[in-house]
Formats: sequence, C-alpha cells, structure tokens
Amino acid sequence: MSANTPLAQQSCAACRGDEPSLTQPEIERMLPLVPEWQVVTVANVPRLRRTFRFDDFAGALAFTQQVGELAEAQGHHPVLRTEWGKVRVDWWTHKINGLHNNDFVMAAKSDELFSA
Amino acid sequence: MSANTPLAQQSCAACRGDEPSLTQPEIERMLPLVPEWQVVTVANVPRLRRTFRFDDFAGALAFTQQVGELAEAQGHHPVLRTEWGKVRVDWWTHKINGLHNNDFVMAAKSDELFSA
Repeated sequence: MSANTPLAQQSCAACRGDEPSLTQPEIERMLPLVPEWQVVTVANVPRLRRTFRFDDFAGALAFTQQVGELAEAQGHHPVLRTEWGKVRVDWWTHKINGLHNNDFVMAAKSDELFSA
Repeated sequence: MSANTPLAQQSCAACRGDEPSLTQPEIERMLPLVPEWQVVTVANVPRLRRTFRFDDFAGALAFTQQVGELAEAQGHHPVLRTEWGKVRVDWWTHKINGLHNNDFVMAAKSDELFSA
C-alpha cells in the first residue's frame, strides 16, 4: 500500500500502542484530505468529528449500523451519537490517546459510506 | 390501558406539545419504577439517562439497533451514544422540553430489551 493510496482505500494498520500520535503539523497536513471533519479535544485527547445529516431517525440509525459494521471489520471503533436526523461520529485511537493515520482512514471510509 | 399497567407494557401516547411536562413530584414518584435510570439536565431540559454495558462493540451496536427499532415503532426517539462496551440512552420529549409519561414507558421498554 503506497502512501499515495487514497485514504478511503487504505486499511487500518494494527496499532500497538507504542506508536506516537500524529503531531500537530501532521494532523494539519492530513485534515484537508477529509475536509468535512474537524479536530475537537475531549478530556485532552484530540478526536476527528463529523456530524452527518439525515431526513429522519431511520436514516440516522441505518448509517450508525453501517459505520458500526465498518468499525467491526477494521477493528477500530468510534463513538457514534445517533438521534433524529443526525449521527455524530468521533474517531480517535484510545491506545495512544491521540490521532493515528487509522483515524483519518476511518473518517474517509465513513464519508464514502455516506456518499454511497 | 389502566394506570396500573406496568410501564413496559404501555405504549407511547401521542404527545401534542400542549401537554405539561411532568412536575418534579411526579418525576420523583415515577423514578423508582425505572431504578436504573437517573434524571440529568442538559441545556435546562431534564432527560432520563441510563448507560447499558456490553462485552464488546458488537453487543453495543446490536442494542443500539434494537432500541432504535423500538423508537421507530413507538414514534418516540432517544439520543443513543454507542461505543465499545456501552450504549448511553437519553429519553426526553422534545415537544414539551421535558419529561412525559412516554419517556418512562420507553425507559422501561429499553430495560426489557436489555434483559431479554
């Protein structure tokens, strides 16, 4: 897998927990690749966050299920907040208390599910 | 449907938006019926909240789906926060910015799904 492979086509690499988090310059270089996402900090840990909009509750619930299945398949799990008309997705890497390339991969894959 | 019907067997009544919220004494009288739930206040609106625990992400996601389908069936929708090993459920009634008997019914029905 080349570094030029689009994010959404990459897979989550096993994260051993002894890898460094992405640095702030690295995060800033990657964010334009997932322009709908923003970095928010919760309990001192940066997360990638996007709120996806739907016409009703059923659409939001179906998307939650899709992202959840993607998470299971990749072995990397988000926090999903589902309510009427929207799903807020947060990706970060618990093992390193920070952001990893995997989180950007999962953000791009989530975008792809939404556009599909 | 008698007032003595267990909460979990009741259905959500149509909420027209001109009904009063439950008063604090009414809430306190009903809370013991759903002892795993607590009242939290978010943006000045009381909600019923419970965090359900699971062994993994898949269990949490499956429960989210079950509660979501229940919500669709009853026409009353929660906020569901799904993550590895837990689902936090908030019930309240948007139309009245408060708690309604329906929220207690949905809390009891959620408990029943969890125990099933």
